[in-house]
Amino acid sequence: MVEWLVVPTPDDPRLTREVAAIDHTGAVVTTRVPVERPLTLFLNGQEIVTMMTIGDRPDCLAVGYLLNQNMLRADDVVEGIEFDEELDVVVVRTARATNYEAKLKRRTLTSGCAQGTAFGDLLERFAEVRLDPASRLRTSWLVTLSRKINTMPSLYLTAGAIHGCVLCEEDRPLVYMEDVGRHNAIDKIAGWMHLNGVGPAGKLFYTTGRLTSEMVIKCVRMEISILVSRSGFTAWGVELARQAGLTLVGRAKGSRFLVVSGGERVIFDDRAPGLRDG
Amino acid sequence: MVEWLVVPTPDDPRLTREVAAIDHTGAVVTTRVPVERPLTLFLNGQEIVTMMTIGDRPDCLAVGYLLNQNMLRADDVVEGIEFDEELDVVVVRTARATNYEAKLKRRTLTSGCAQGTAFGDLLERFAEVRLDPASRLRTSWLVTLSRKINTMPSLYLTAGAIHGCVLCEEDRPLVYMEDVGRHNAIDKIAGWMHLNGVGPAGKLFYTTGRLTSEMVIKCVRMEISILVSRSGFTAWGVELARQAGLTLVGRAKGSRFLVVSGGERVIFDDRAPGLRDG
Repeated sequence: MVEWLVVPTPDDPRLTREVAAIDHTGAVVTTRVPVERPLTLFLNGQEIVTMMTIGDRPDCLAVGYLLNQNMLRADDVVEGIEFDEELDVVVVRTARATNYEAKLKRRTLTSGCAQGTAFGDLLERFAEVRLDPASRLRTSWLVTLSRKINTMPSLYLTAGAIHGCVLCEEDRPLVYMEDVGRHNAIDKIAGWMHLNGVGPAGKLFYTTGRLTSEMVIKCVRMEISILVSRSGFTAWGVELARQAGLTLVGRAKGSRFLVVSGGERVIFDDRAPGLRDG
Repeated sequence: MVEWLVVPTPDDPRLTREVAAIDHTGAVVTTRVPVERPLTLFLNGQEIVTMMTIGDRPDCLAVGYLLNQNMLRADDVVEGIEFDEELDVVVVRTARATNYEAKLKRRTLTSGCAQGTAFGDLLERFAEVRLDPASRLRTSWLVTLSRKINTMPSLYLTAGAIHGCVLCEEDRPLVYMEDVGRHNAIDKIAGWMHLNGVGPAGKLFYTTGRLTSEMVIKCVRMEISILVSRSGFTAWGVELARQAGLTLVGRAKGSRFLVVSGGERVIFDDRAPGLRDG
């Protein structure tokens, strides 16, 4: 079965930097920290936004950002993506002529790490999406997924201070993206799916970050019906998940977790969770 | 000595909501989650931004946001702050006439949770600030501060999924603000300091979140010379801290920590750190 189509590249020297530090004993040591660099996104002739990113997948980030902001449609033909590494600029060209001047004027800062994608009509397509009622989450997958994801070499393990999002199928992680903000990580997955023609059927999302409104909105927008995190919830995230019928699982640690929405998709097949982690 | 001038109010029913959940055993339980609500900020006649916030201190958040975006000057006279709870609107009125149309057009999304304050010239005043070279950080304070802060009742302990920032003096926490994004928490402290005439001399910042560029920029802008976090660093955060001569301490857990910038302010007076936490 397919697993790990995309994995983090913690050894890529462009993604981390070694810095000198003094530790608690007063000794001089070195430590690795993730980089964050600006990336200015143009859609055809229009400057959309400057994002801060680790910079590993500008094409996926650009396309995913535009999709999740409803500036790129599912049926839009991407004619080209040009990335200028020296100028930190990425240009997405589409067959359809675009102009989002009005949208760019409206600004909403969403909460938490989700705050990145700060304007536009984030909720635009939200009410239209019908999530698959037939998709299922087996609780035994959660334990397997979190073990596989947490032991995969990553920037998180190497340098910390980073968020990860993983597109999964059953108990198999498929695409693991990291970035300084989890909104970038989820956008990169959206872009990867679009550019590789991979649809949402049978997929679930695993994220390291909090389950805020923006994560829920993006997940629903991507038509993925199950969202899992080891972190907690915000009230608006829960509310939106319930509106959309998204299965929202948080505080997933070991074999423990809480389902606050869409519980009808969950199959409790992990036999002795109480015994497993005390 | 003064301590705990402002503490979290986890019992305030407006700040959390009880939601039903299913736990890993299949049992129905309830859990508390923090709310996030929109707050639209006007400066005089101009709409500036809509923020997502827990909503506990709209006056502090509004003023702090404007200060940290360099839309409010230290010598600006705030003539009034009107908060309309039903409309989720806060209006800050100043003696000086203001117009930030040009600034509002430029958008930069900073990284991580810091992403909130997403446009304007965040770096505008950065190069001008001279941080106090005489301020000091005793390593013994770190252990005391983290014990006091971590045991103070908070939304974090009650509902999770929230960030905290604490303004401190030596080993005494003074003002502990929480919000869904740590950029809001630090903005609320900036606003509180301005509204209460409290200056930066002798103060240090403790935050639960990552030490990203935006946290460093805001701290420097507020002229606080020491920033401590239990989380990690990003490369740009380290670089900016070094440029500004900010003392930047991260991964502070127990009596362990790493200083990556401004080490000359640190006094290693915590005698046997190795013995304390193994």
